[in-house]
Amino acid sequence: MKIAVDATGGDHFPQNPVNGAVLAVKENDHLIIVLVGPKDQISKELSNHDYPENRIVIQDAPDIIGMDEAPAQAVRSKPHSSIVVGLGMHQKGVVDGFVSAGNTGALMAASAFILGRLDGVIRPTIATYYPTVKGFGLMIDAGANLEVKPEMLFQFGVMGNIYARDIIGIETPRIGLLNVGEEKEKGSETLKKAYALLQALPNFVGNVEGRDILAGQADVFVCDGVTGNILLKFGESIPDALKMLLMGAIKKRQLDKEQVSLVISLLEEAFAPFDYQRVGGVPFLGVNGISMVGHGSSSPAAIKNMILNAVKMAETDINKKIIASVA
Amino acid sequence: MKIAVDATGGDHFPQNPVNGAVLAVKENDHLIIVLVGPKDQISKELSNHDYPENRIVIQDAPDIIGMDEAPAQAVRSKPHSSIVVGLGMHQKGVVDGFVSAGNTGALMAASAFILGRLDGVIRPTIATYYPTVKGFGLMIDAGANLEVKPEMLFQFGVMGNIYARDIIGIETPRIGLLNVGEEKEKGSETLKKAYALLQALPNFVGNVEGRDILAGQADVFVCDGVTGNILLKFGESIPDALKMLLMGAIKKRQLDKEQVSLVISLLEEAFAPFDYQRVGGVPFLGVNGISMVGHGSSSPAAIKNMILNAVKMAETDINKKIIASVA
Repeated sequence: MKIAVDATGGDHFPQNPVNGAVLAVKENDHLIIVLVGPKDQISKELSNHDYPENRIVIQDAPDIIGMDEAPAQAVRSKPHSSIVVGLGMHQKGVVDGFVSAGNTGALMAASAFILGRLDGVIRPTIATYYPTVKGFGLMIDAGANLEVKPEMLFQFGVMGNIYARDIIGIETPRIGLLNVGEEKEKGSETLKKAYALLQALPNFVGNVEGRDILAGQADVFVCDGVTGNILLKFGESIPDALKMLLMGAIKKRQLDKEQVSLVISLLEEAFAPFDYQRVGGVPFLGVNGISMVGHGSSSPAAIKNMILNAVKMAETDINKKIIASVA
Repeated sequence: MKIAVDATGGDHFPQNPVNGAVLAVKENDHLIIVLVGPKDQISKELSNHDYPENRIVIQDAPDIIGMDEAPAQAVRSKPHSSIVVGLGMHQKGVVDGFVSAGNTGALMAASAFILGRLDGVIRPTIATYYPTVKGFGLMIDAGANLEVKPEMLFQFGVMGNIYARDIIGIETPRIGLLNVGEEKEKGSETLKKAYALLQALPNFVGNVEGRDILAGQADVFVCDGVTGNILLKFGESIPDALKMLLMGAIKKRQLDKEQVSLVISLLEEAFAPFDYQRVGGVPFLGVNGISMVGHGSSSPAAIKNMILNAVKMAETDINKKIIASVA
């Protein structure tokens, strides 16, 4: 099993991707990593680590795509970037998957363009983990498809179902359609038609509402990319906003140092599920290959998890199952 | 000034509407309230209160629309309900506005049907308050319009602007378009066109993202009714979800009673902005009249605030301004 890792992706490179790669090969004895990026920088960082040298190799890719570059333009103008080179290797079958903590838009564009779509998939999609009181759910689509048709929402449900079952390990994931009410006649024309299609899935639990997300009333939340993206970023903003409100409440009282630190440490613990760095990346689904993206601030452990998830996706042959399910 | 109040609306009727009406006439000396609902029930509840008797009158309306009844069906089949009778009085000019804590869908349907649209308004809309770290914002549309055109989003911005300025009292409200990114070329075709139209408002601050809502980066958040409704219910679910996560963190430690009660009381205080009962109802905008709806669990104080906001809307002649602005 060979996974290409974007060594220039994220806010802390090449340190975190290199570090994550080293952790991954130590955890999986059958894994070979190809670090893709500027050769000298990677070599230098690798020299700080102890690792089985035959299991981490370097593929030079000197161009760097910044986190804020316009995606399509970046992919077109930088053929020697880690994203284009790494996905190209995957497309040629040299590696079994590609993971990155880099520019999500560029990765999405390059994955669709270089790997292509799976047979029968209307549009590739991106899923994201979402914290709930029960652990987390999968929100799909998280921003790849801003205009959707009912058939696309149906396919998001199908792909999310397979990912939640085979990669996350939920035996029978509850698939919910995000909507304005529970009843099947609720919602826009698109949502009503999507409901009818999703009923073909035995584990479809019907419409779920905004209040059902944090409450964990589904394992897979199906929605369009505008709703998913707004909810994704909204979720990320909850801890800071509530800390600010809580600090306001704390300031109004005469609390001693010990009390303040108790409250803050409890908060940190309660908010841990909202810490996206703990999650090991999220998949592009529906592309003809294995491509995952992590948060820009991914820690080495998060990158390691993302690599191991990519291995799992390749080993379980997730794309074959998707093709069969959308057929 | 005469306002009709739905005495059967909400989870606690006729107590809370009657109580709210009594509070309102005591606060505003020039106000007359018409309590609309089953005469005997209202009389009985009123007899528990001390109030200026010539300023609260009863209009009998024996039918009761339940909180969960299908809106259009309820309005059609119950002509003697408080909603249909009260809005009918308003349409005939007998009262200057109608407020209710009842079935939102029925109110919306009846308001549009009985009062009609304002000249130039494509579709009436419903706005909602949204808690932020800076106080609150106005989210518009909150669930009335599930399919939107760019021109409708533009009008939501125009109406939200006038409401935020003249009723909430924000001198120059920042109008933001909820989108997947800040740049003007972001979003669906509908959102891109709405952006172009909204630029006509001097106080349009451009696209805002999911993370900007709780952070209070706009005073008016313009969106379609699916997004708004999902975010509205999501917001309402935050306190309970986080209390649950925090209780989990508390249970893992050996805390004494005093420490637990400190944490809980701080939380209650921090979460106060999320308490929708504190808000005095939200308006239907774009209908040819004044129609407001409050949360089903509205307290007497919330109903009083809603009544006084309806007075403000009538006094400032908000609808004349809306007609002028959309022309």
